[in-house]
Parts: sequence; C-alpha cells; structure tokens
Amino acid sequence: MDIAILGGTGDIGEGLALRLAADTSHEVLVGSRDAKKAETKAEEYTTELDSRGLDREVYGFENVAAAEAADVVVLAVPPYHVGDTVEAVADALDDGDVLVSPATGMKRDEEGFHYHKPGAGSVTRIAADAAPEGVAVVGAFHNLAAARLANLDADLGIDTLVIGDDEDAKGIVADVAEGIEGLRALDAGGIANAPEIEGLTPLLINVASNNEGLHDLGIRFQ
Amino acid sequence: MDIAILGGTGDIGEGLALRLAADTSHEVLVGSRDAKKAETKAEEYTTELDSRGLDREVYGFENVAAAEAADVVVLAVPPYHVGDTVEAVADALDDGDVLVSPATGMKRDEEGFHYHKPGAGSVTRIAADAAPEGVAVVGAFHNLAAARLANLDADLGIDTLVIGDDEDAKGIVADVAEGIEGLRALDAGGIANAPEIEGLTPLLINVASNNEGLHDLGIRFQ
Repeated sequence: MDIAILGGTGDIGEGLALRLAADTSHEVLVGSRDAKKAETKAEEYTTELDSRGLDREVYGFENVAAAEAADVVVLAVPPYHVGDTVEAVADALDDGDVLVSPATGMKRDEEGFHYHKPGAGSVTRIAADAAPEGVAVVGAFHNLAAARLANLDADLGIDTLVIGDDEDAKGIVADVAEGIEGLRALDAGGIANAPEIEGLTPLLINVASNNEGLHDLGIRFQ
Repeated sequence: MDIAILGGTGDIGEGLALRLAADTSHEVLVGSRDAKKAETKAEEYTTELDSRGLDREVYGFENVAAAEAADVVVLAVPPYHVGDTVEAVADALDDGDVLVSPATGMKRDEEGFHYHKPGAGSVTRIAADAAPEGVAVVGAFHNLAAARLANLDADLGIDTLVIGDDEDAKGIVADVAEGIEGLRALDAGGIANAPEIEGLTPLLINVASNNEGLHDLGIRFQ
C-alpha cells in the first residue's frame, strides 16, 4: 500500500515515516507544502534506515503529489492546518482513499496542558467535514510521543486508538498501525468519540512532566 | 489511618472498600445517607473478606458519622451528589482531613460514552469549591472499573492518576492508593488538570465496548 504522510517533515510525521518504513512493506511518501524540504527529509530518513541495515527508500513530494500517489493519507500537520490541508489535496484523492487524522488541539496554562476542543467537536471531525465524498476519515495515532516513535531503538508496547464511521477504512488503518512493531490498534468507535481520545494527549504530557523517570509516555489499555 | 468511603454502598465504593480492607491496614468506614444500608453493606464486605481468610472488619455508618471518624474521606457518590455530599459532611471534617474525588460526569449517545464536563470545570473542582477551609481536595481513583476492583481475584496492574493543589494531601492519597496491590499512583499535577483525567473514564468504556475480549479496562502509562 502507498502511504502519504503530509506534514511528514514534522516530528510526529518523522516518527510515523520511520516506523512504517522500518517495520512494514508499505511505500512511504513524505509530503510537505515545500517539495524541496520533503525531499531533504526523505533522504534523511532513508539514510537513518540505511544506517540500521534497512534497505528502504522513503520519497519526498509536495503534499498534493504525495496524496495523489497514495491510498492512505496521514494528516500529520498541526490541528489548525488540518482543514486547509484536506482542501488542498482534495482533488488528488480517489474514491476509496482513506484520510488519517492524528492531530489534537492543546493549550497550556501554569498547571499543564489541556485539550483545546475545536468548535467542530474534534480535530478528527474537522478532517471529516473537509473530506471529499467517497474518502473516509479515520482518527488514529493521536497519543504517540513523537520522539519515542522516531527513535527506532525505543520499544513501544503501547496502544493506538482507531475511530471512524466507515468500518472498512477503519480496518485498513488498524492494519497499517499494527504493522508497526509493538503498536496495538484498538477500536474506539465512531468519530463522535474523538474528543476523549484527542484529550488523552495533554494528559500524557502532564503525567510525564509530574513523575520523575517517565517521559515520552504512551498508554496501554489492560 | 481511618478512611471513610461515602457512597460506599455503590459499586466503585464497594471496590475501594474491599481492596483497601484486603490490601492495607487502614480502617475502612463505609458511609451512606442511610446508616442501615451502610451497616448491611459493611457486613457483606466483612463476610466477603472473611471468606478469603482475611480477618478484617469493615464498619458502616451514616455519611456524617463516617466522615467524622475519618482522616481521608472518599466521595464515591454520583457526580451530581458531590457538592451536596461535601456540604452535608463539612462540619464533621477537621483541619488537615483530606477529601478524595473519584467521580466523573458522563453522557451517552449512539456512538458511546462522552465526558460531560461540569460548568465548574470538573467534578474534582466541584468538590474543591464545596470543601471547607483547611480541608484539601485530591482527585484520584477516577479511571478504575468498579467490577474489576470489587473482584478480589482480578489482578490490577494499572495506574490511578492523582491530582491536587496541596502536595501533602496528594502524597497522603498517593500512599493510600499504592497500598492497593497492583495499583500505581501517578502525579498528574493540579486540579486544573482534572478534565482530561475525568474524560478518560468514558474512553475506557468505549474501548471496552468496541473490542472483543476487553472489559473492565484500566490504563497503564508506559
């Protein structure tokens, strides 16, 4: 399968690109608004993989070209760019393509990080509202620490929650996620259930920052 | 230490009373608005403990009497009774006593359960606003499945998040929580961080209801 990671030059994008390339046989396409930046980053990822004896090439493209070539398109962009990004690549998406929304909105006060719930209800819902007909949106990868994901020496042993209103699309994304070693995909229902998942991310940061020895936390349901 | 569990006849109260009595040396006082009900339930708990060879007596009282006798008072009541319950027992609390808030507000739609954030910001904040001066409020035990807690054959191996604006009180509650076998207490900061913790409870229910083989879920940060 061809997987585009739009915003794939950012930190969560880097982690997903490296893990998918290292652990699965999917083609990984790094997207950016700046094609040159995408190419440079893709080369970096390829070098990193090569240094580990992994003969895997990651390719970089402008977002639209990456989306055009892909079956699964991950929106690894900041929450306030999710709607715009979907609109920018909408014409490049085919019927049956799947958009994946991992972003969450956060704000910070003296106590820590808090979920900044968008007016639409959730960031995943923003993506769904912007998606063209025939393209399902699935929420996943919300609660993964970028630095841990990008460090291929770090074990995961954690869960990612998958939500969506199209069961087939959800199954495709769950399979992609479970291709990453140590990551278990759990079904958390429909997109209406997104806020509680997006709200987990600030909690993970708060727990890490208040407990010595814990950092880059993930979560395991058990 | 003497620990009162107000609403200790309900399901989360039952789980906490049994676990604390089974695993710690704290005195456990079951509170209810109905003294008779508290006594009956306390006898049931004592019988359950005895059937496992645990020589531990649990006592039942009307809420005010339970709070009067205790150093730590757990508000194991529905979220809409938290404020009233604190006010009802306020005169029975001494300076330095600690109130513990485990409740969370939820509503349900076709997709699943959702966090019902109170106007005050969180249920833990409602408790804090109602507490008399000199009595600290700590949030804890929000994300525990009642049935699993009450089944002393069930292993935990999960975390509870502790929040509060008084570090000493938070330490007391963390120690009480860690007295329960298999429960790890993690510091999640101040009461301002309560919404993300209370919002985890509906998520745990949604994940359990969407994945075969998972039920009475807890959470582990790792």
